[in-house]
Amino acid sequence: MRTVGMLLFPGFELLDVFGPLEVFGSRVVTHAFRVVTVAREAGPVASAQGPRAVADHGFDDCPRLDLFIVPGGQGTRREVDDGRLTQWIAAAADEAAMVASVCTGAALLARTGRLDGRRATTNKLAFDWVTSQGPHVEWIRKARWVEDGKFFTSSGVSAGIDMALRLVEHLLDAATADAVAKVMEYRRHTDADDDPFAR
Amino acid sequence: MRTVGMLLFPGFELLDVFGPLEVFGSRVVTHAFRVVTVAREAGPVASAQGPRAVADHGFDDCPRLDLFIVPGGQGTRREVDDGRLTQWIAAAADEAAMVASVCTGAALLARTGRLDGRRATTNKLAFDWVTSQGPHVEWIRKARWVEDGKFFTSSGVSAGIDMALRLVEHLLDAATADAVAKVMEYRRHTDADDDPFAR
Repeated sequence: MRTVGMLLFPGFELLDVFGPLEVFGSRVVTHAFRVVTVAREAGPVASAQGPRAVADHGFDDCPRLDLFIVPGGQGTRREVDDGRLTQWIAAAADEAAMVASVCTGAALLARTGRLDGRRATTNKLAFDWVTSQGPHVEWIRKARWVEDGKFFTSSGVSAGIDMALRLVEHLLDAATADAVAKVMEYRRHTDADDDPFAR
Repeated sequence: MRTVGMLLFPGFELLDVFGPLEVFGSRVVTHAFRVVTVAREAGPVASAQGPRAVADHGFDDCPRLDLFIVPGGQGTRREVDDGRLTQWIAAAADEAAMVASVCTGAALLARTGRLDGRRATTNKLAFDWVTSQGPHVEWIRKARWVEDGKFFTSSGVSAGIDMALRLVEHLLDAATADAVAKVMEYRRHTDADDDPFAR
């Protein structure tokens, strides 16, 4: 049983968070994954779109995470300059067996230095800003998602769903990932290099 | 400015709720839509997958909704038998200019009688149960979503995203819907009859 932890911060992108949590919280994989949300403090956190989600844990009482996911959203523009946040992200990333980011969440991960020398991708409309947050990262423009060792990074918003399904495949098997997608009536994009949004 | 109201109840499906709210809460359409969540009481509501969302309003203080959306999820199996809930859904549906359901949310809508004599669809894996909740509804098995007057009903989970984008097209225009999808890096399915999950 692996614990999947999703970071929340003010201005997170709704689908960056709840696309992957739909996957890891699927009834198909309840035997394999336990899902938790974490923010500076436990309690409600407002998304960039308005609706609020509840953080199950604060930084101080967060359980050890096996898979740690950093979402994006408009809030990342402010959060990259919060040293306490990026320090906590660095520690959680070091402790986790697998680390993933969705969309502009890659900017937060990049600011920890943990992506330095690694290949990674991010949202295409915010590409210039995100990549400026990690000058030593090998940014890949044309990719639905990128895998480099224990770090998986996805392109914008809905790409997080395809990356999450690929993580299920990586950690369990392809048949289970396909079964999760079927329950979601979701047509997976299984080719990480197929990215029409890269122009 | 239209108010989009999303119903929450214990055991709602995460992506049924947050797929459409990502669409209507998009920065592309902030001029056109305001998003609110509503449940029996304001406050946290646990999803079927575990993570909790916050209801902005209870039934007693919910603003008038222009577009009312009913999600599905495991909780619907219990909620269909709650007369107070289905009465509130009926009243909100009567008041709204547009009404939509995602996945097994169609069962809740069907129990109000408001889909009687209309065409509608739902999740394919739960098709027999949902359709048993509305014997006078003309259920369509092969459809990504179905439009009948002011009622839009979608198939399972991720189909709610395509239906929501179609609603943006219907209420605003196609270019705006495409712009929302682009920001989400989402490849729309624009053909309502294209449904590989119907077998």
